[in-house]
Amino acid sequence: MQALILAAGRSRRFWPLPDKNFLKFGDVTIIEHQIKTLRKKTSIKKFVIVGGKHNLAQLKKLFPRDIVLEQKNLNKGMAGAVLTAEKYLKEPTLIISTNDLIDIAGIKKVLATKNCAGAILAKQVSEYFPGGYLKVTQERIIDIVEKPKPSKEPSNLVNLVCHLFNKPTQLITELKKTSNTKDDGYERALAKLFKTEKFIAIKHTGTWQALKYPWHVLKAGELFLTGLKRQISPKAQIAKTAVIEGDVVIEAGVRIFDFAVVRGPAFLGQNSVVGTHSLVRDSIIGMNSVVGSGSEVARSYLGESVWLHRNYVGDSVLSENVSLGAGVVTGNLRLDESEVKSIVQKRKLGTGTTKFGCVIGAGSRIGINTSLMPGVLIGSGSFVGSGLIISENLPEKSFITGTIKLKTQKNRIQLSQRKPLS
Amino acid sequence: MQALILAAGRSRRFWPLPDKNFLKFGDVTIIEHQIKTLRKKTSIKKFVIVGGKHNLAQLKKLFPRDIVLEQKNLNKGMAGAVLTAEKYLKEPTLIISTNDLIDIAGIKKVLATKNCAGAILAKQVSEYFPGGYLKVTQERIIDIVEKPKPSKEPSNLVNLVCHLFNKPTQLITELKKTSNTKDDGYERALAKLFKTEKFIAIKHTGTWQALKYPWHVLKAGELFLTGLKRQISPKAQIAKTAVIEGDVVIEAGVRIFDFAVVRGPAFLGQNSVVGTHSLVRDSIIGMNSVVGSGSEVARSYLGESVWLHRNYVGDSVLSENVSLGAGVVTGNLRLDESEVKSIVQKRKLGTGTTKFGCVIGAGSRIGINTSLMPGVLIGSGSFVGSGLIISENLPEKSFITGTIKLKTQKNRIQLSQRKPLS
Amino acid sequence: MQALILAAGRSRRFWPLPDKNFLKFGDVTIIEHQIKTLRKKTSIKKFVIVGGKHNLAQLKKLFPRDIVLEQKNLNKGMAGAVLTAEKYLKEPTLIISTNDLIDIAGIKKVLATKNCAGAILAKQVSEYFPGGYLKVTQERIIDIVEKPKPSKEPSNLVNLVCHLFNKPTQLITELKKTSNTKDDGYERALAKLFKTEKFIAIKHTGTWQALKYPWHVLKAGELFLTGLKRQISPKAQIAKTAVIEGDVVIEAGVRIFDFAVVRGPAFLGQNSVVGTHSLVRDSIIGMNSVVGSGSEVARSYLGESVWLHRNYVGDSVLSENVSLGAGVVTGNLRLDESEVKSIVQKRKLGTGTTKFGCVIGAGSRIGINTSLMPGVLIGSGSFVGSGLIISENLPEKSFITGTIKLKTQKNRIQLSQRKPLS
Repeated sequence: MQALILAAGRSRRFWPLPDKNFLKFGDVTIIEHQIKTLRKKTSIKKFVIVGGKHNLAQLKKLFPRDIVLEQKNLNKGMAGAVLTAEKYLKEPTLIISTNDLIDIAGIKKVLATKNCAGAILAKQVSEYFPGGYLKVTQERIIDIVEKPKPSKEPSNLVNLVCHLFNKPTQLITELKKTSNTKDDGYERALAKLFKTEKFIAIKHTGTWQALKYPWHVLKAGELFLTGLKRQISPKAQIAKTAVIEGDVVIEAGVRIFDFAVVRGPAFLGQNSVVGTHSLVRDSIIGMNSVVGSGSEVARSYLGESVWLHRNYVGDSVLSENVSLGAGVVTGNLRLDESEVKSIVQKRKLGTGTTKFGCVIGAGSRIGINTSLMPGVLIGSGSFVGSGLIISENLPEKSFITGTIKLKTQKNRIQLSQRKPLS
Repeated sequence: MQALILAAGRSRRFWPLPDKNFLKFGDVTIIEHQIKTLRKKTSIKKFVIVGGKHNLAQLKKLFPRDIVLEQKNLNKGMAGAVLTAEKYLKEPTLIISTNDLIDIAGIKKVLATKNCAGAILAKQVSEYFPGGYLKVTQERIIDIVEKPKPSKEPSNLVNLVCHLFNKPTQLITELKKTSNTKDDGYERALAKLFKTEKFIAIKHTGTWQALKYPWHVLKAGELFLTGLKRQISPKAQIAKTAVIEGDVVIEAGVRIFDFAVVRGPAFLGQNSVVGTHSLVRDSIIGMNSVVGSGSEVARSYLGESVWLHRNYVGDSVLSENVSLGAGVVTGNLRLDESEVKSIVQKRKLGTGTTKFGCVIGAGSRIGINTSLMPGVLIGSGSFVGSGLIISENLPEKSFITGTIKLKTQKNRIQLSQRKPLS
Repeated sequence: MQALILAAGRSRRFWPLPDKNFLKFGDVTIIEHQIKTLRKKTSIKKFVIVGGKHNLAQLKKLFPRDIVLEQKNLNKGMAGAVLTAEKYLKEPTLIISTNDLIDIAGIKKVLATKNCAGAILAKQVSEYFPGGYLKVTQERIIDIVEKPKPSKEPSNLVNLVCHLFNKPTQLITELKKTSNTKDDGYERALAKLFKTEKFIAIKHTGTWQALKYPWHVLKAGELFLTGLKRQISPKAQIAKTAVIEGDVVIEAGVRIFDFAVVRGPAFLGQNSVVGTHSLVRDSIIGMNSVVGSGSEVARSYLGESVWLHRNYVGDSVLSENVSLGAGVVTGNLRLDESEVKSIVQKRKLGTGTTKFGCVIGAGSRIGINTSLMPGVLIGSGSFVGSGLIISENLPEKSFITGTIKLKTQKNRIQLSQRKPLS
């Protein structure tokens, strides 16, 4: 048994965050986590990884002993990725990607199916999700319908990318027949296969999280945090007055200052700092990050080397090397308390939650007292001035300032001498 | 002995706060507190309450066993209110209202006067107050002058609405003779009565607080707090690291988080929350309110279900269900440190104090980092955007935003790689 | 041996701070500190102090037993100052000023030189400094070059004003010969003297700090703090929960509230206050100053009677009687993390550091939530409104406000009833 890891996606809807494969939770990227878990918990020992020009070097570096292939034409989507690996697809193969975070129990159920050409993991949804739906007779899949309109779904079973092909050459054959003009070639090939071959839908009852939009990082972070057990490195320096509650992982070199509170679940990466009078809860703090004094971080993801100082960061994602000046606040709730929306690739999308702050790309700096509105995405390498109100996305490498027109007043009243505080 | 409670006023100068009768201190409204105290501490057992269309249902609900009457024409003021109760005014009657908060000792002195047609409680003032002044010969009142100009006062005795009429039918007769065109019919009837009947001025030496303008809530709150004794419910959850000092009442279900400080006198209503690193002092926190982490509340009144987060609320009144975004500050001191002024019914009034913040009507939301200037009144149900400077009153159901014009800069300097904190 | 103290400078490049002679570190002004140290640690017992009209009264008050002279024409600079003291300059004299803060060891080395007409203390610099450079053959000085262009320096020895003249009448003679049209008459007279008389350059290896620009106060403060030893007055009131670490001097009457942190080296002057949840580190807090609750003061100098409340003051100098409203932040790092620049007497100067906040003159008030940009200088007696962004110097007695244009929105969404916090 082998796995084909589809890692060539360009994470365009994940902007301003970089390639989702390399997003770190704890000390490992999610693609490493996925492959390690498969290697350890299943019979899969051989991995074929398909990347693109943009991430091939990094994939090769992370997986020097595995097969790493380059998909040349990324516009051909999953179909192109599978065809890239054609010569390796002779034996039973599990196709999987980091677009869907699935617990290992679900994957094992797929791997365990017998007497069929393959199996597809499917999530039973209770409300509309914009994905591919499986049409099923008993447990046999007879069709797949890509993004039907709401209420037109053929079932409540959504296709997750955890596909077992006992004879992957059948898939290759169909893919080659399918025209390449659209990006749903893979699904069309599947639909044809389902007509003639027996594919079984495995209902997934465990956790699943899509990793498509940047706010999904917060949901994925929740899953990561849920699995943590309290573990405090003896090499961490924690002030006697600090309060550490619940399942908190504190790595080596971490420093926690006086009157800081860390309320689990929370993860504090190597050499990160929680300053005096700061509060961290339900959050992931990347290595070398500094939650400077007087800050609060709640339900957020901070990458590496993020620097805060007297901020509130709530329900937000700050990529590596981001700094916020004192008094910067991430607004994470609309005044009307309705669903927060974001603009992704020029389309306004609901984020599915009323509590969502902002996402800031790597290397950005935000000036003191600036207000960041819910749902705003800020491109990497941006400079945003002080005292501003940011209510729209900013492209990469933005350099934004603003001024409040000042007015000189007359008739200044003379102050009397101050008395000492009684 | 009976009491006629005048409760029909529309609290227009109390805007943006609702009907003052129902303002709560602790768990009871002030009208309940007034009637309960009279019932318990005096011989008055019968209460006739005059309300208006706007509050009749609520008065009937609060006082199901008392007589609650509706004054049809509210423009007729106190005269109309007394005439509404005409048929009940056969026996000695104390006329009182929630416009004047008076300690029970003063009221008892009025009730104890003998050998006269009635008595009027009078506050000896040391500086001008815009009220009715009693002209007195020895202790007999000979006239009442409504709002004389400063320095034209006939005495330093200000009429408080705590009036005993041993023969209230005399008052009724005079009220009927007085023309109805002005709203001072009651005082003119009094003036006539004083000519022929012996009314005694009782000097009030105890506490008294008018409840006319919204900032009077803070003064009334001070009186309430002064009377508190330390009392902490066993059903409250208080972090070990929290500091609770002085006369603090903490009700059931209250939660106080780490490193919070509550410095008495202070009142924390049922199920209210004082968050991590927050400070509450000299304040009243209504039930279900949340003083979210990193906030300070000083000398303020918070109604029920108010939500703060990283705010400073000083010398301010926040009505029920108000939320402030992180970083919102109530300015409570002018730069020139002079008296704070407010606009009440289009007139600019001095508030009599140099420390006064703002008053926010029920159900309002204020966005992050917004600055509220001293003396501002915000109508109920308002939405105020983030990062703004609010220096004028806002009407009810305002929805205010503002933008700082942003400018894209060129010549962005490249940042060098960040070094870890040493 | 006597000393001539040059104290007539008008501290114009020190604006918006007042006369540098009277800047206090701990409880004494620097001129007092300088003279006291000389009196105690050297053989100098006689002091001739030259002031100007602007500070003569104050100098006489501080040094009632010393000779205090007035330099009439301040435009004549050091030359004029020395000539003012002509009749006292008969015996060996050390000329010194508060423009250069030099440790006593250096001064003693100058005083100990033998067999020469005089000696000049010189700082060996490793990079360009805009001062006077000594041209030296062996240890004998042969010339002095005022502010050469960078790379045109005749040596790496910068002239410090710590000059010993064994025969000061020689200097007087030269000064009289030198034309008065320029302000470098003193240096030109020196240059002439060096031709004929043997003056020795003493290399200064100890601490030295120029006190020329307002940001030099922070460097001088560092020197002061370095010398502190932990000393806590028994007359200070320190909350049990407060944390006091390192070499902190806490004077009588100081009050430190709950959960405050003071991290040494730090100096808290008499009756100063560190409020609840505040943090003071590497800073000097003048007497009667109040670091109000929720503030952080880092690497800063606060004069007397400064009032903070929920501020961040970093790498900044606040003169006496300055108040910051809640939420005011001193930005102390540029977005591009490059050297902070300031405008001094209309010229833009580098401050030599990437971490520098602002300097605020005495008696100023800054409104809530205002953002002060790095390098800004604010004249004394200024009023600055709330919610503003101050990115340029403000002259004395400025009264600045600003408004963000507000917009009334329609289609206000109705809020549903709030649920209590679960």
